[in-house]
This record gives sequence, structure tokens and C-alpha cells, in this order.
Amino acid sequence: MRISELSRRSGVPMATIKYYRREGLLPEGRVLNPTTVEYDEEHIQRLRLIRSLIQLGGLSVARTREVLEAVERPLDAFETLAVVHHALPVPSAETSRKDGEDRERAADEAASGGAAARVEALIENMGWQISDASPHRPALAESLAALSRLGTDYTADDLIPYARIATSTADLDFAQLEGIEDQIALAERAVVLSVLFEPVVRLLRRLAQEDANHRRHDRRACGRAEQPTE
Amino acid sequence: MRISELSRRSGVPMATIKYYRREGLLPEGRVLNPTTVEYDEEHIQRLRLIRSLIQLGGLSVARTREVLEAVERPLDAFETLAVVHHALPVPSAETSRKDGEDRERAADEAASGGAAARVEALIENMGWQISDASPHRPALAESLAALSRLGTDYTADDLIPYARIATSTADLDFAQLEGIEDQIALAERAVVLSVLFEPVVRLLRRLAQEDANHRRHDRRACGRAEQPTE
Repeated sequence: MRISELSRRSGVPMATIKYYRREGLLPEGRVLNPTTVEYDEEHIQRLRLIRSLIQLGGLSVARTREVLEAVERPLDAFETLAVVHHALPVPSAETSRKDGEDRERAADEAASGGAAARVEALIENMGWQISDASPHRPALAESLAALSRLGTDYTADDLIPYARIATSTADLDFAQLEGIEDQIALAERAVVLSVLFEPVVRLLRRLAQEDANHRRHDRRACGRAEQPTE
Repeated sequence: MRISELSRRSGVPMATIKYYRREGLLPEGRVLNPTTVEYDEEHIQRLRLIRSLIQLGGLSVARTREVLEAVERPLDAFETLAVVHHALPVPSAETSRKDGEDRERAADEAASGGAAARVEALIENMGWQISDASPHRPALAESLAALSRLGTDYTADDLIPYARIATSTADLDFAQLEGIEDQIALAERAVVLSVLFEPVVRLLRRLAQEDANHRRHDRRACGRAEQPTE
């Protein structure tokens, strides 16, 4: 197909396709003559992955190139997922630090020793296999340090019930990846699952919190009326 | 205490305190004489809540004022939590729509009918009590519509295992709020729990995913060596 059809079928504007090609993200098509280049299905699939990484995943062009190069190597599904997983933006405590930034950073550093140790204790208690290069390990320590600064210290033991729930979630997540053998398709699915499915998980938690609030309220109201239902 | 001590003890700069006062977020202190105003512990507690809402929660000044006014009314814990819960920024699909925005929006609208129906079916199946005003209901529909656009349709049934897990998480969350009777303290805690604890939950999922990937890999490796361990 020509670039116009590639654009139409992939939904990616021609200018963007040319940009990705210049940046080395998209391989050159087959040059039929000086003005005509032929593209195939692999280009469509590749374009979809690039769009997922950049638009959904929020990856930079440089980071996207790294992931694409990794995915092109003869990796197994395990390695493909590990590469994608570590390349995605890391959820953070999202504190906007407009002032008192230095003070906070100092407190951060003071606390981070303790927080990092708590993360290690949690990982060990859970028996989790986590690579030393995982960006999620220091990010979790930072989130715990931020909570400590606000007066709430979570010990590794406090977090274990949440970690058990996370294991159940991850098992459900992996069930969604079962049976996908193609590396590019697997990488694309992993991006969608991590990036687009994450808000679904967060929103379900918010909805469940509202329901839990209602349930707790109803229970109290019944208690007050001296008609316990349990 | 004077404003300088209020600033020191709350960690909020004097200029910011004056700004909050001008905006009507922080009540006036007791005027001792034309140059001296006296503040008390309630001002410290109120300042902490304002900071949580604005800096952690990402609320606007106008929204913060609404929450503060609500929290000042004689509400019970249920209502306080409901107000805070609905005021917080809603997790979204986080798709950056630099181009094709109109096309995507059209697809969005087309799909949102189906997605909204799936959300209602899920809420009904789970027996969740969710207010009609909940911002999380349309946000979930939007996330599901975004996933549909990428070729992944989740039915209400697909989401039930995740919703069950969300219920367990919400029960753990509420255990953290038990015993807090003071309204301001409860509101502050709810902000911290929703905003700062949310990344903890997300990071635990990421870590658990990495571990699940390792476990799946090990299982396959054992299978290949013809030494099944199960």
C-alpha cells in the first residue's frame, strides 16, 4: 500500500508517519521508484505499537526507539514484557512542590533510607522476584516517604494485605496476555493493559470506596435504630 | 500564636497563608491589636487540610473552598467522605490527543452509549450503591470506550473479578479511616488515602506484575526442561 493508505488504515496522519520514519522508529518501505514507496501489514502493526508507546504510554521518542529495538531482538514473551514494563512512566506521589521544595527534599532524603528498607522487607515477605533495575522499587519508597512526611508510616506488615490484593490483580492481568505469541502484539497489549487499564482499576477502587462508605453508613444507621441486621 | 509561628509549625510560607486568608479558605485569627493577630491549633489543622486538597489533591482554590464549606456543616463521616471523594480529580485514560482529536471524540461519543451501559450492568451485578452524581461512573465509561477504540471490549462480566478485588481494597481503605471522629481530620485522611496512597496501590500492582512475569517464566522454563514442579 502507499503512504496515503497506510495513513488511512492506521489512523496516523501522513506528516506523523514521515516524522516517525525520519526518527528511525518506522522502517523504510519497499522503494518501487523514486516517488513511490510500498508499505505492508507489518508497518501498520508497528505504527500501532509506536502510537501506543508515545500517545498512551507517554514515552519519549528516544525511549520508544529503545523499546522497539528491544522488541526486535529474539526475545521471549518474558523479556518483551520486562522491557515494556520498565520503560513505562512510573506512577508517582504526584505532589506538586511549588514551595518548600528544598525542605521537602531534605526530609525526603532523611526518610528514604527507612522507606527503602520497608520496601525491601515487603518484597522479601511476599517472596516477590523483582529485578534490581526495577523503577517501581524506588518509586514505592518515595511514595512511602511522602506518606511518612504527612505523619502516616506504613510498615511492610501494613502493606501486606494490599500486596496480596496486587498479586491477585496481576494474575488477572496476565490471564489477559495468555495466548498472545507475536512479540509486537504482546508489547502493544502490555502497553494498553498497563496504561489504559490502570485507570479502570483506579476507578473501580473509587467506586468500591463509595459503596463501602454507603455500606458502613447503612450499618451505623441500623445500629442507631437498634435493629441490627447481622 | 503569631503568623510567623503558624507558618513555622504548619510549614506553609507566610505569603501563602495570607493568600489563603484573602481567598477565604482560612478563617481570620483573633485580632489582638491593629498589627497583631492570634492564631490557634484549629488554624494549623485547617491549613494542613487546605494544603492536602490543593497540593496533593490538585484541587482549585474554588473547589477547595466548596469542600471546606461542606466540611464545616454538621455532616457525619459518611457525608464528609462523600464530599471529599467527589471533589478529587478523577483518574482518566490519560490519552494525549495531539491529533485526530475530533475523530477520536466522535468515536468516543459513538461508543460511550455501549460503555455507559456496561458500567451500569457492572454496578448492578456487584450490588454497588453509587450516587447518580458520581464522577467515577462516566469516567469509567470513558476508559472502557477508549479501550474499545483500541480493539479491546471489556464486558461487565470481564470486569467483575477486578471489581471484587476493588471491593477488598476499599474495605482495607476504610479500615484505615476507622476511629477518626473529627471531621477535618477525617477529610484530611481521605485526601491522603485517595491521593498519596493511590500510587502505592498502582506501584504494588506493577511490582506484582513483574513477579507474575517471573513466575510464569520459571514455570515455562521448568516445563521445557521436562521437570514439571506441579
